[in-house]
Amino acid sequence: MMKTIVIDGLGLIGGSIALAIREQWPNYRIIGVDIDERSLRYAKEKGIIDDGCAQLPDIASAADIILLAAPVAVILAHMDQLANIQLKPGVIITDVGSTKKQIMDKAESFNHRGICFIGGHPMAGSHKSTVTAARANLFQSAYYFLIPGIAGHTQHQQAIETLQALLAGLHVKWLILSATDHDQITAQISHLPHILAAGLVNMSQDTFSQSPLSLKLAAGGFKSITRIASSDPEMWTDILLSNRELLIDRIDRFTERLLQIKEALRVHDQDSIRRYFHHAKITRDHIQALPNDPAANFFDLFVNIPDQIGAVALVTRILQEAEINLVNIHILEIREEIDGILQLSFANQRDLSQAKKELQRRGLSVVRGD
Amino acid sequence: MMKTIVIDGLGLIGGSIALAIREQWPNYRIIGVDIDERSLRYAKEKGIIDDGCAQLPDIASAADIILLAAPVAVILAHMDQLANIQLKPGVIITDVGSTKKQIMDKAESFNHRGICFIGGHPMAGSHKSTVTAARANLFQSAYYFLIPGIAGHTQHQQAIETLQALLAGLHVKWLILSATDHDQITAQISHLPHILAAGLVNMSQDTFSQSPLSLKLAAGGFKSITRIASSDPEMWTDILLSNRELLIDRIDRFTERLLQIKEALRVHDQDSIRRYFHHAKITRDHIQALPNDPAANFFDLFVNIPDQIGAVALVTRILQEAEINLVNIHILEIREEIDGILQLSFANQRDLSQAKKELQRRGLSVVRGD
Repeated sequence: MMKTIVIDGLGLIGGSIALAIREQWPNYRIIGVDIDERSLRYAKEKGIIDDGCAQLPDIASAADIILLAAPVAVILAHMDQLANIQLKPGVIITDVGSTKKQIMDKAESFNHRGICFIGGHPMAGSHKSTVTAARANLFQSAYYFLIPGIAGHTQHQQAIETLQALLAGLHVKWLILSATDHDQITAQISHLPHILAAGLVNMSQDTFSQSPLSLKLAAGGFKSITRIASSDPEMWTDILLSNRELLIDRIDRFTERLLQIKEALRVHDQDSIRRYFHHAKITRDHIQALPNDPAANFFDLFVNIPDQIGAVALVTRILQEAEINLVNIHILEIREEIDGILQLSFANQRDLSQAKKELQRRGLSVVRGD
Repeated sequence: MMKTIVIDGLGLIGGSIALAIREQWPNYRIIGVDIDERSLRYAKEKGIIDDGCAQLPDIASAADIILLAAPVAVILAHMDQLANIQLKPGVIITDVGSTKKQIMDKAESFNHRGICFIGGHPMAGSHKSTVTAARANLFQSAYYFLIPGIAGHTQHQQAIETLQALLAGLHVKWLILSATDHDQITAQISHLPHILAAGLVNMSQDTFSQSPLSLKLAAGGFKSITRIASSDPEMWTDILLSNRELLIDRIDRFTERLLQIKEALRVHDQDSIRRYFHHAKITRDHIQALPNDPAANFFDLFVNIPDQIGAVALVTRILQEAEINLVNIHILEIREEIDGILQLSFANQRDLSQAKKELQRRGLSVVRGD
């Protein structure tokens, strides 16, 4: 059956979702909504959308499914627009906002009208980009959170299944949870970390304002802990403000921990400090070891390589000859805590096992491959 | 002229320094001191040292140069041992401790005896390992801090030059500064970051103790900001305790920033939050872009690659045929903020320029190479 899908916001995420729907449901009509004419023109030329439209209200009533793919603040504003529009019976509205509580609170008005609003959040790295970078497999193997407007409600359950079928081409891992759980989890593992990274960078910059050389001394550890401080300021301002209460609590809890370690330093409490680092190492090593790590979702093989010209070429040639697709490749250096080892990432266990066999057959020593 | 070098502590660092001295000064006599018999036996078998000894006092008086390569707490204890020993006239004592103030304070007693104590700290990533991982180029292009016992003193200046000649085989970047400057810089760009990373991991673990799945949702951002939480707890306990006063101050300063951003969230101060992230992004992007980045010290080339089997193999084969040594290789994914790009790292500008030429000659498009 033909359906009309309206995607409001044609950025990297909206565009990639459009491509995934296109692959899975070639006969669906996809209409992109964006105030940026160039994005619409590009998307239409590339066949990402069938038609473009500048304003959501002008097209919303034609939609079987409306996907709001904008920052949270914009999603909230456009939900207000939709509130005053006569929509198709059975229409499903969903979004991709980074926080869910504010959006799901506002969504209640739709539920009262008998319209299903299913909150959504595909977990891709924070990345400011345009539709020109869109690709159907952007979220491959990433987590995609879904939040039912009314938990356990049959109509909402069916709507979730409809959305999962619509977006099957994304090949994501679906996870259904409450808006509060979602915002608490993301506050801890994503929002607070961004606050810490940016704070550390700003503090370092101010500390060394008189000696610019000092910042240049920052080694690998500093670079990795502050990498996310390069994220899009606009997007993160929007995310923080949409998760204020929980983040204020997270900051309080983190500050308490800093004061505890400060006290341990003050009274020279060696045991507490050791426990602090020991506990962290055990937990962190465990996260790294998670097989279905959503950050990578790759199956890794670690190979010893001689430090000489051609060592990497040999490995990649062996994989090419065996027609095994390499998802990523990286030389782990001493500063990265392992020495002289080539890390190979594959898309699945089959590729990994075959690669392991081929490399060992050619005399290379596989350090770890699980 | 033949010299006797005593290296106290045969771990990764002591062993690597021994190898570098061996390469540069094959006729020098290198004596390793370690309580671990296996380390001594291994080092002697591999020719890393000429002789082994269990206790520093038993051999110290024979040394022309004594290098203390242990954790700070051990270095301080062994300095006390040396204080009561008749050492060779003109002997130079140095160390590789991660913090310098405590050590240089204690070193004053040597200076009063007319013995040169030159503090040292080679900036390799925190890495717990044994002599079996030692290699002469462990610190290649890394910064190596030197702290004169008496700044500007001729004898100490000459001692510094002697050490730089002795360790020329390390191929490090020498940086001479005061103990206080050293400890302030490392407190900000290394010690505080380790406290934050471990605290974030511990807090996340406690927050999700009832829902283990949540930690599995941690994406790339969380993994990069907490990577250093996997560092050796013993080593970091030692480092923190040896830099207590400055770290207590760093924690206070950082807490102030957290309270500022918390207040901005409380009063919904969008401009302050935007400035916070904007300022951080500008600074962090600049660090990443530093050409002589001590974390990598590589010259990077960014090449567009088609997403197909053999794409990486083609690039590595071209480099191999041109006999260009690849320092590292990495596919930058969307989650790493760039899409479909192969990052190639080289040891110097010459290799980078030649690689750029070769790759372009073979039709590959170089996105960035500077």
